Amino acid sequence: MTYAVIMAGGRGERFWPKSLQELPKQFLHLLGDRTMLQKTVDRLKRLIEPEQIYIITGKVYYDIVLDQAPEVPKENIILEPVGRDTAAAIGLAAVVISRSDPEGVLIVLPADHYIADEEHFCEVLKSAVAAAAPGTHLVTLGITPNHPETGFGYIAHGRLHDIIEGNPAYTVDRFTEKPDYRRALEYLANGNYYWNSGIFVWRADLILRLIKQHLPELHAGLLQIAGAFGTEGYESTLLKIFTDLPKISIDYGVMEKAGNVLVLPGNFGWDDVGSWTALESYKEKDEQGNYLEGRGVLVDTNNTLVFTSDKVVATLGVEDLIVVEGRDSILICHKEHAQEIKKVIIALQEQGYEEVL
Amino acid sequence: MTYAVIMAGGRGERFWPKSLQELPKQFLHLLGDRTMLQKTVDRLKRLIEPEQIYIITGKVYYDIVLDQAPEVPKENIILEPVGRDTAAAIGLAAVVISRSDPEGVLIVLPADHYIADEEHFCEVLKSAVAAAAPGTHLVTLGITPNHPETGFGYIAHGRLHDIIEGNPAYTVDRFTEKPDYRRALEYLANGNYYWNSGIFVWRADLILRLIKQHLPELHAGLLQIAGAFGTEGYESTLLKIFTDLPKISIDYGVMEKAGNVLVLPGNFGWDDVGSWTALESYKEKDEQGNYLEGRGVLVDTNNTLVFTSDKVVATLGVEDLIVVEGRDSILICHKEHAQEIKKVIIALQEQGYEEVL
Repeated sequence: MTYAVIMAGGRGERFWPKSLQELPKQFLHLLGDRTMLQKTVDRLKRLIEPEQIYIITGKVYYDIVLDQAPEVPKENIILEPVGRDTAAAIGLAAVVISRSDPEGVLIVLPADHYIADEEHFCEVLKSAVAAAAPGTHLVTLGITPNHPETGFGYIAHGRLHDIIEGNPAYTVDRFTEKPDYRRALEYLANGNYYWNSGIFVWRADLILRLIKQHLPELHAGLLQIAGAFGTEGYESTLLKIFTDLPKISIDYGVMEKAGNVLVLPGNFGWDDVGSWTALESYKEKDEQGNYLEGRGVLVDTNNTLVFTSDKVVATLGVEDLIVVEGRDSILICHKEHAQEIKKVIIALQEQGYEEVL
Repeated sequence: MTYAVIMAGGRGERFWPKSLQELPKQFLHLLGDRTMLQKTVDRLKRLIEPEQIYIITGKVYYDIVLDQAPEVPKENIILEPVGRDTAAAIGLAAVVISRSDPEGVLIVLPADHYIADEEHFCEVLKSAVAAAAPGTHLVTLGITPNHPETGFGYIAHGRLHDIIEGNPAYTVDRFTEKPDYRRALEYLANGNYYWNSGIFVWRADLILRLIKQHLPELHAGLLQIAGAFGTEGYESTLLKIFTDLPKISIDYGVMEKAGNVLVLPGNFGWDDVGSWTALESYKEKDEQGNYLEGRGVLVDTNNTLVFTSDKVVATLGVEDLIVVEGRDSILICHKEHAQEIKKVIIALQEQGYEEVL
């Protein structure tokens, strides 16, 4: 059977002050009337039944997930007591699903990505599931780059492994970190590089075997947690063991070390929507290049994005700004610094304003 | 006897969104823990008794004035039903005071100016009172300019008329409108020009005679209002007559036409504090040239002023901005546009956001 594991545990600090510790990016209406999580669930429902969808998220977000994804069975919501990065989250989901279906194929994907062409996305995903079904390969979706993006990791593909239902599957030569601009230009020109989408497909037994091989400490912890499934002591065991698991991404911990990885290229208009400026291309702007969401007036203002909540925002004589009013705070950021909101988060922490994060 | 007439009816739109229709600039704590009105009253108390201080303001501000200036007798608060500019306000105050002291000397001054050297200010004012006491001249204070300011009107002085208690009094050649920059440079170089402070001293009978001469319609209206003083019909007469009075400034309506005007130069650190940027020189800035009032963090930010109210403001990668959070709205303005807040006010009115003004 095929399952989806939606990773919905992220903090999404880059959308502060709309994203808050208590309401991260994946639960926001950043692009229309469905939240990022809801759009992800909607997309998967084109392929599988809601009963096959699992959501792994932070314990504190349980009520939000219940509310936003009512079609997903309660028992499919896997709660992390703390965030331990993607290897631990994926491992936990794999042991949960393994209980009933160790050979199940898992589509593992973040809850907060944008996909323009959902039909094409589903077609590639179907081929990826077929490629993963024998249990011999980890499969990942690679996005055909259309500009020298420095914000994503890249995947260099090798030889053609197979063509599955019309979609080519390539071997992977290597994963690379986010490149500098010069290198990103090279990758784009080279033609053998894809953006690493963070969307993976594999069998539960295969990923657990590879976790055992490359992250034995994590695997041991997962076994202890699995041993407590269905017992009274589950929650306390989970809290105790999970908190001590190694904090490492699946990319770094497994993918980059595994030899048997296939990449299926996709050109379905993917975006990780990583910052306020990333939203820009999906919004209808006025003649001055401004976008206003909420109540406000933009006077002698150019190329500026404004998102309000309860107050009326007025701009005068400014350009290239992002203005965001959150519940407790207001961000005024130059577009060129939109990737650095982490600096603001740190400054707020240092100065004792943690209550607004 | 000497009286002060504090003009406290202004809207002060240039400090929106801190200044609101219901709470204009003169009632704000822009410079320290006393409001602009309170500082004005404090200053006058160095010269005269609170019983000699009159405040003319909008009817809607009565409670604020009572609260902010408890030492001023209630009966000295003169209420305008609507704003009709300074000639009408000054005329009304003059007829009120004339009832008991037609030869009284009136110090007429705005409620929202800044004076650095209060002692010197009081000395010049004393000389101005002495110059006005014979009832032959309108007296105004001229500020020695120290830069080519384009935001003020100028007064060209003529010959030396007299030296009164050590302060020279000059005849006035002419009043000029706000100049362009080239002309302001000329005025500064010329040495015979002062800034028009809007601070006047004259006898009640003299100003009323000149209003009769130059603004007969206004004078007739004032007589009708005076006829209703102390009667039951006062308020309705005031509302009816005052609303129809010509709307004109005392500068344009009387000063520029009168021949018998004296100017006493003052160099007491005067400022009309006409915009958010005007506040800047009175605030202690950090090494990056930033000033923050309230709760916030300024990251990679330069030469920026931030005034918050209830939310935490975070700036990132910006410069030369003024950020002001009001009760219902937020202003983000480039410093070079600080004089143009009127444009925002108009835009807000046009777009139906009058409730935030």
